[in-house]
Amino acid sequence: MSARAGIVITGTEVLTGRVADRNGPWLSDRLRDMGVDLAHIVIVGDRPADMHDALEWLAGSGVDLIVTSGGLGPTEDDRTAQIVGEFQDREMVLDEPLEERIADILRRLMVRWPNLDMDAVRASNRKQAVIPRGSTILEPVGTAPGLVVPPLAGGGPTVVVLPGPPRELQPLWDEATKTEAFAAAVANATEYRQTMLRIYGLPESEIAETMRQAREGGIDIDRLEITTCLRRGELEIVTRYEPAEQDVYDGFEQIIRDRHGDLLFSDDGSTIDQQVAALLGELGWKIAVAESCTGGLLTGRLTELPGSSAHVLGGITAYSNAVKTAVAGVDAELIERHGAVSEPVAQALAQGARARLGADVGIGITGIAGPDGGTAEKPVGTVCFAVAAPDGRSLVRTARLPGGRADVRDRSTTVAMHLVARILREARAVGSGAGGA
Amino acid sequence: MSARAGIVITGTEVLTGRVADRNGPWLSDRLRDMGVDLAHIVIVGDRPADMHDALEWLAGSGVDLIVTSGGLGPTEDDRTAQIVGEFQDREMVLDEPLEERIADILRRLMVRWPNLDMDAVRASNRKQAVIPRGSTILEPVGTAPGLVVPPLAGGGPTVVVLPGPPRELQPLWDEATKTEAFAAAVANATEYRQTMLRIYGLPESEIAETMRQAREGGIDIDRLEITTCLRRGELEIVTRYEPAEQDVYDGFEQIIRDRHGDLLFSDDGSTIDQQVAALLGELGWKIAVAESCTGGLLTGRLTELPGSSAHVLGGITAYSNAVKTAVAGVDAELIERHGAVSEPVAQALAQGARARLGADVGIGITGIAGPDGGTAEKPVGTVCFAVAAPDGRSLVRTARLPGGRADVRDRSTTVAMHLVARILREARAVGSGAGGA
Repeated sequence: MSARAGIVITGTEVLTGRVADRNGPWLSDRLRDMGVDLAHIVIVGDRPADMHDALEWLAGSGVDLIVTSGGLGPTEDDRTAQIVGEFQDREMVLDEPLEERIADILRRLMVRWPNLDMDAVRASNRKQAVIPRGSTILEPVGTAPGLVVPPLAGGGPTVVVLPGPPRELQPLWDEATKTEAFAAAVANATEYRQTMLRIYGLPESEIAETMRQAREGGIDIDRLEITTCLRRGELEIVTRYEPAEQDVYDGFEQIIRDRHGDLLFSDDGSTIDQQVAALLGELGWKIAVAESCTGGLLTGRLTELPGSSAHVLGGITAYSNAVKTAVAGVDAELIERHGAVSEPVAQALAQGARARLGADVGIGITGIAGPDGGTAEKPVGTVCFAVAAPDGRSLVRTARLPGGRADVRDRSTTVAMHLVARILREARAVGSGAGGA
Repeated sequence: MSARAGIVITGTEVLTGRVADRNGPWLSDRLRDMGVDLAHIVIVGDRPADMHDALEWLAGSGVDLIVTSGGLGPTEDDRTAQIVGEFQDREMVLDEPLEERIADILRRLMVRWPNLDMDAVRASNRKQAVIPRGSTILEPVGTAPGLVVPPLAGGGPTVVVLPGPPRELQPLWDEATKTEAFAAAVANATEYRQTMLRIYGLPESEIAETMRQAREGGIDIDRLEITTCLRRGELEIVTRYEPAEQDVYDGFEQIIRDRHGDLLFSDDGSTIDQQVAALLGELGWKIAVAESCTGGLLTGRLTELPGSSAHVLGGITAYSNAVKTAVAGVDAELIERHGAVSEPVAQALAQGARARLGADVGIGITGIAGPDGGTAEKPVGTVCFAVAAPDGRSLVRTARLPGGRADVRDRSTTVAMHLVARILREARAVGSGAGGA
């Protein structure tokens, strides 16, 4: 029996969809890393009965650990500590030293809000220092402390209580894992291995066929836990298995390489974004963008990774035709002749990005994100891409992307990243770049 | 008793956090719109036992309706239809006309993948036409049909089975709500009213104090369902109440207006993004951006709304100093004297955006998103903003934003939107703009 856990996300704002939950996925990853099986994530509202029900259900399903996120704020609808205290049959007590430490934090924060009444603020935060007796306190990063609350008399799960904001939850989780109560709860964690293969340009049904062929070929893939998923236009195959099944996994991976090796771009967890950054670093090349329908999102994506200023110079969002001409240097007559959404204009944007920003590699994107602007010949989702690199290397491509406006814009950045990666890999293969011979 | 529902999101890729779930929040909003209370959202893995447990638990908690998302694909780990069939005690049967309709869809899709074996594709999709006997079929938008599966003999919840991709789930949900089985399940929905107030620039603890004052003032706010939440740097207060409590709500809203009226920017559900777009439209002004640390994300945000090309010209992402000078027109000596992250450089970027892109309103952003590049004087999170508008109107502001790189970048776009809104409102108040007298 390996250790099992459940996650309870609280907050009507999450249940009602006004805020996307980032904590469930993050905690799930951490549990997986430590070999703890995750049974369920439950998102509950702010009604005390609903949260209590969820805790009882998870406990009844036999989990060793429950992690809660949210409901630790100063307002009255934040009741997690109290509900967990009742669930574990522990009396609620005011921890005065903790109250003092929270007050210290507030005094420093309140410098930004000079007109607030400090006493009122302290009153509304006192409740954050009322905790189940016998809890281990995790020191606040914001103003809310986390808690590790073991069961009172041996039986039942340990509950780790964490605040909702991810930048508070994440460091407090790390602290929680160092406590004795936590270690005792997950003592039975199993060792797993996990791999991720990323494939670009393959429909999901082809993977079903590959799995069928693996089975026909005598590979007992039912001994592996295989998950396939389409994400931002890429297919991810994640496989988790116990070390004894390494041979079965190796056989499965080989079949994927045999059938889809040309489309498999990552087997080490690296993303296309990280690969593009690394390739630019290796080649010593700087990149710039001139984009239209993506509105700045490709440049935003290229600058998402820390340290990207080493190889990203910037970009031009040429949303209007006048900006395409005046700032990105696209010949107005080219737009007139082929239309703004055309391969020649994408190429001119890529060259404009190189020339105007002084880059080695330029990317041009122009398309119709919708919902309006589509025609019979160029329907919504039509996007033209061009990449221009040194030594006259270039690529141009027109795609028809599915989905609504947000999908088309996001998917376009993925297509562009893969085109850039392709041209950079080719250049590296022939020894181009500032680092070449 | 009002109607209650539960949502079950399936897919190991969601449970393990590799994909953020968008369906739970979306479905939650729809249920709320129709006055159905949402008890829980449960995210389960691909193990049949886990999903079955979740269905049993929700049924046991007395819900009238369960909506499932995902697990309808062609691969073997997609088992939702079968599990729901077992849960409702319904036999699984192949629906041959449905199989034919799926085959037609596939033939059209496969034009994009000419090298696939059509027979293999059809085999892996046949399982999508095996459904619980007595289900109502929701015609596929992708290749997976949805299902409405009523309980076999009166008791228990009706289950609506929907595919995972949002662009398939959303239209199928609309179809599901039109079926008789669905209408019967939610016959007891309560009428609710709901309001949203959005406030910018107020700490959450101040709202706790406001609620305390409302209660002291004799307003029985416990009759309202009030949720407060911080999102992208804004505070949202959502209140849901039955029509009989209108007076209580009116009293509560008045206290908020009295205490925070200057910071309350939206009471009709409109976002700051929509307000900026509307103000630009009213004034007849065009906007452009020159941004550094936000890397294109502000321009991406301004172009997120359909129709934004009517007032957004584009932007320059001036990530390197050379681009700030050559493309955005910032005087190199200004950068030398004040540093790239400084109010004078932000102002020069805003003016550069206006001049180079021919805009009425220009926005400049320059800051330190981290994790590196911070100093004692300008720590990570220091961001300078400037807005320049016609008639010499301008604003400049330096903020210290909390959180990591992604937080600082995202929060910066919110600060910028509010600065722009402020200058546009002022201009409108004095009758500026192309539409003015």
